[in-house]
Amino acid sequence: MGASVPLRRQPSLSGERFVVEYRLAGQASDAPAKARDICLEQTVEFPEELVPPGAIRDQIIGRVESLEPAGPAQVARISYAVETAGGELCQLLNVIFGNTSIKPGVRVERLELPPSLLAAFRGPRFGCEGLRSRAGAAGRPLLCSALKPMGLTAADLADLAYQFALGGLDMIKDDHGLADQSFSPFEERITLCAAAVARANKETGGHCDYYPNVTGEPEEMKRRAQFAKAAGAGGLVVSPGLAGLSAMKALADDDSLALPIMSHPAFLGSFVAGDDSGISHAALFGQIMRLAGADSTVFPNFGGRFSFSRPQCSSIASAAAAPMGSLRPIFPAPGGGMSLDRIADMRSVYGADLILLIGGGLFRHGPNLTENCLHFRRLAEAF
Amino acid sequence: MGASVPLRRQPSLSGERFVVEYRLAGQASDAPAKARDICLEQTVEFPEELVPPGAIRDQIIGRVESLEPAGPAQVARISYAVETAGGELCQLLNVIFGNTSIKPGVRVERLELPPSLLAAFRGPRFGCEGLRSRAGAAGRPLLCSALKPMGLTAADLADLAYQFALGGLDMIKDDHGLADQSFSPFEERITLCAAAVARANKETGGHCDYYPNVTGEPEEMKRRAQFAKAAGAGGLVVSPGLAGLSAMKALADDDSLALPIMSHPAFLGSFVAGDDSGISHAALFGQIMRLAGADSTVFPNFGGRFSFSRPQCSSIASAAAAPMGSLRPIFPAPGGGMSLDRIADMRSVYGADLILLIGGGLFRHGPNLTENCLHFRRLAEAF
Repeated sequence: MGASVPLRRQPSLSGERFVVEYRLAGQASDAPAKARDICLEQTVEFPEELVPPGAIRDQIIGRVESLEPAGPAQVARISYAVETAGGELCQLLNVIFGNTSIKPGVRVERLELPPSLLAAFRGPRFGCEGLRSRAGAAGRPLLCSALKPMGLTAADLADLAYQFALGGLDMIKDDHGLADQSFSPFEERITLCAAAVARANKETGGHCDYYPNVTGEPEEMKRRAQFAKAAGAGGLVVSPGLAGLSAMKALADDDSLALPIMSHPAFLGSFVAGDDSGISHAALFGQIMRLAGADSTVFPNFGGRFSFSRPQCSSIASAAAAPMGSLRPIFPAPGGGMSLDRIADMRSVYGADLILLIGGGLFRHGPNLTENCLHFRRLAEAF
Repeated sequence: MGASVPLRRQPSLSGERFVVEYRLAGQASDAPAKARDICLEQTVEFPEELVPPGAIRDQIIGRVESLEPAGPAQVARISYAVETAGGELCQLLNVIFGNTSIKPGVRVERLELPPSLLAAFRGPRFGCEGLRSRAGAAGRPLLCSALKPMGLTAADLADLAYQFALGGLDMIKDDHGLADQSFSPFEERITLCAAAVARANKETGGHCDYYPNVTGEPEEMKRRAQFAKAAGAGGLVVSPGLAGLSAMKALADDDSLALPIMSHPAFLGSFVAGDDSGISHAALFGQIMRLAGADSTVFPNFGGRFSFSRPQCSSIASAAAAPMGSLRPIFPAPGGGMSLDRIADMRSVYGADLILLIGGGLFRHGPNLTENCLHFRRLAEAF
């Protein structure tokens, strides 16, 4: 006979639930026990027989809504009371995958979040429409390149930014490896690059947004974002795998900034490294980035330096566009070793709602970087 | 003939470098190219032939220091200029594994950080010695349990906390699933639980620390931490996989808080899910948690509900204790389905520098929770 849990009052719950679809690897015969284990692990984290009867047992513990075979695996749809998420991203992700991330053979495939839960999330401030409106670009992909290599001084990076912007790009982002290094201090870089882009915009009459990369501890990252805004930045690059998804969301939600957010996948690769663990490409780079306020989601395109497949990339684009309460659709921004000769193929997979992100490849077409950019733009508009 | 990168000034670098040990899966004959690819991907992220000559090519690009077979894999030791990390955790982790996390077959095994880099990190404020001194406990493991299940009201959780503290535990943590839910609002929970632990301490003359779990976006998390401090909390639980490692470090470094930090592994499991990807147990739960200021590092013990092996757990404990510049050694806190009959085995693996974290298992010994805790303490002191 063990000790019992005190229970003077039952929790009061609305009955509203959200659903997580998990892929369970292994034997079908083990799947019911695995699914039940997830229900406990993600909520009460307590021996089932010791959980007091009533609302905790009936509603707080996750509930297996369905369990069906899917290829060699099983798919379990498990629902949780919306109250378990406490109206915050951190705890929502914790209920979705906190401890279960540590168990072998379970992958998060998809989230189904009801309006009552999504109401706590503002989501992307701009989304596809907002980014198109900023760029004055209807019906075509947006064009983006990155300032690099790391090691250049702020003045040399600004020179690059000027050449890119003269060439008609819609967005110029810092490479995600530019932080506040001695060879290119943050404030100097942002000041010079924003000014260079503004000067080019004046000359072309176009509108190119400069997206500085903001890193650091949360207060410092916010300070850098504010500095960037004041210097004339038109967006921010954030790597939520490094800074934290909640830190990115806080920047996205900040009305004093009101800048588009581009999420970068750095440090997140382990989540999608195996079929039998982690989070699906669509849920991580589509659904979760949108929940966390990204207006565009960078990920490695198929056929580049990385190993995402065409269907995986396509699933991210679908999740970026699919209905999700009142959250705006966002732009997929596939990159990673892209070149100009890939544009036609990318258009065929992603359609026009796409940010074409070409970095080093832009240097290769000819000796004049601005001419290369103009060529890039003509190719992208040729559809 | 392509466009060239502007280079009016070479970066100035100290020559100091840090080393990352990567495990490369696959054919030995592919390893040199893979290692070189990491050198580029983690720094300039640029086609090698376009990188300008001079310091960027010679010092910013990573350098393969050695490449040796290790079982079926190869181990590459790659060094980077300390300046690439810009003196911040976010960017250090980005250089270590940002883009490469997305490439298949590469795992971070170990970090070798020179004093010149570690000087930018305060590390754990308390460490093992500090936690021992707070608890007045020399030469024995510290004892900890968790407040749960989720769904209990604040008053019922406080009742549990009181019973635990009367039983002589050194630390009582919130379960990491307790956030700011309607059934147990954060401020009410922290107020009642801290008061309950203080009352028990008065009765026992002992010193039990209450560790609230703090979540939320960075500013809210800081606000909750400040509230917890004011209410009498003696530590904080943070899940850096959810909140961000930099957000945890900011709490650890905050002199106005000056509270011990216990890191929880929620949402981090995907990093250690495969031998061929992610980060080693020792680097993630040992070295990186220490860099990010944790005084104790929770991870799932071998033989519990999770699947870490005995050598993996042992490697975490070693990394928690190994010399690391002036950073204090920290306590391993293996948990996850532990029970009283596991104590002897745990002592044999971890020694006395250990936090014994037993949750649901404490309810099972007998009907009186406080008696069960006293029994737990006698068992832990019996060595």
